[in-house]
Amino acid sequence: MELTREIRLLKYDGESSSEAADIVVREYPLTIFLNGEKLVTLLCSPEALDFLVYGFLISENIIKDKKEITAINVNEEKGIANVFTTQQKNNITGSCSPAKEGLKIEAKKLIALMKEFSTASEVFQSTGGVHSAALSDGKDILIYHEDVGRHNALDKVLGEAFVNNVLFTDKLILTSGRISSEILTKAVKRGIPMVVSRSAPMDLALQIGEEMNTTIVGFVRGNRMNVYTGGSRILFDKP
Amino acid sequence: MELTREIRLLKYDGESSSEAADIVVREYPLTIFLNGEKLVTLLCSPEALDFLVYGFLISENIIKDKKEITAINVNEEKGIANVFTTQQKNNITGSCSPAKEGLKIEAKKLIALMKEFSTASEVFQSTGGVHSAALSDGKDILIYHEDVGRHNALDKVLGEAFVNNVLFTDKLILTSGRISSEILTKAVKRGIPMVVSRSAPMDLALQIGEEMNTTIVGFVRGNRMNVYTGGSRILFDKP
Repeated sequence: MELTREIRLLKYDGESSSEAADIVVREYPLTIFLNGEKLVTLLCSPEALDFLVYGFLISENIIKDKKEITAINVNEEKGIANVFTTQQKNNITGSCSPAKEGLKIEAKKLIALMKEFSTASEVFQSTGGVHSAALSDGKDILIYHEDVGRHNALDKVLGEAFVNNVLFTDKLILTSGRISSEILTKAVKRGIPMVVSRSAPMDLALQIGEEMNTTIVGFVRGNRMNVYTGGSRILFDKP
Repeated sequence: MELTREIRLLKYDGESSSEAADIVVREYPLTIFLNGEKLVTLLCSPEALDFLVYGFLISENIIKDKKEITAINVNEEKGIANVFTTQQKNNITGSCSPAKEGLKIEAKKLIALMKEFSTASEVFQSTGGVHSAALSDGKDILIYHEDVGRHNALDKVLGEAFVNNVLFTDKLILTSGRISSEILTKAVKRGIPMVVSRSAPMDLALQIGEEMNTTIVGFVRGNRMNVYTGGSRILFDKP
């Protein structure tokens, strides 16, 4: 399904207006049913919907292991995902523990990774309407997804990694959006030790980051960046 | 309560790192109880919480008239808002009808309004972490609020207008964030005929805008802007 739609509009340039064509990003409602009961409707970009479902289920502590899922059927046409699990209702409590050292990365390498990440989004460049998220091992970008919602973009990344049994504890997250407590918590739940953004972090995220020993890096722009918590994982040049 | 918090961080400038102080925006959890039952927890900026509660209640169709509310008590310290209404449970269905003409505005005036709006946010300029929303009559900015969430910022504006019996149908909304279907729907429910943003609109919002005769203007930057729907309310210079 297309991520964007072509539309007609009036462009005004300060002097006069003229008709033009442009593309806007699509918002697609996906309703997830869990064992026949409606769980949630997500407004998302219609791509990688299976990964989004997996990512949502693990982020919300609904499943912990792939074996708990007996079937996932995504009907893209109808905007419905049917998930069947072994249990009628799961009551998994989130078990967060402080992040292990996991990885170390040179500041310059992180800046290079963010540059690669920032130029990856063709949809953003054409519409300005999506967020991106990625998983990296500190060398390369391993998984990359976009979505109209920054939570969905991250859930797609986490879902794909989960499906493919990728180890989380030595990876880092790149995100285009602000680092809120909700975004940070998704990473912490998976044991990911580092979250990096070109945008701002928020204070509740920093509090969680300090408690859970997660590295939070914000405002990675040009050659600059701010390291808020967990600075021991960033290798700076000697002064 | 402070909207921001001072923190310590490491600033890296591409060559070396140094300790510095900076401020980050606070995320404050506010739990709304409706007649003693938990309704929702909003992550918001701790300011104008009463307006946020009113705005949330009208946006979610929980109340329609101020008279339905017998009491609202916001306990800022505990992060709790207790709302008591005349009915045990409301089942108001949203009654949206196409927007009336309401207002017309010159393109140049809209650009001037957006410039005024964009420079109003001191918190954004110091933290990069908040969204802004405003209500305007096409001449001045009448109500202005900021919040970590763009939905909350708009609900605060709508809530304050609602409390003060401001007529909605000849006003316009300015927002710093993208125009999603959820943002547009909040305006449509109040009968507001125009939503203007410096960011992108999304396609579901444009579909609703077309159906409801709402004017949607996006990418208002410098002297330029894109008019997506309801262009008859924008007065362009003669070519």
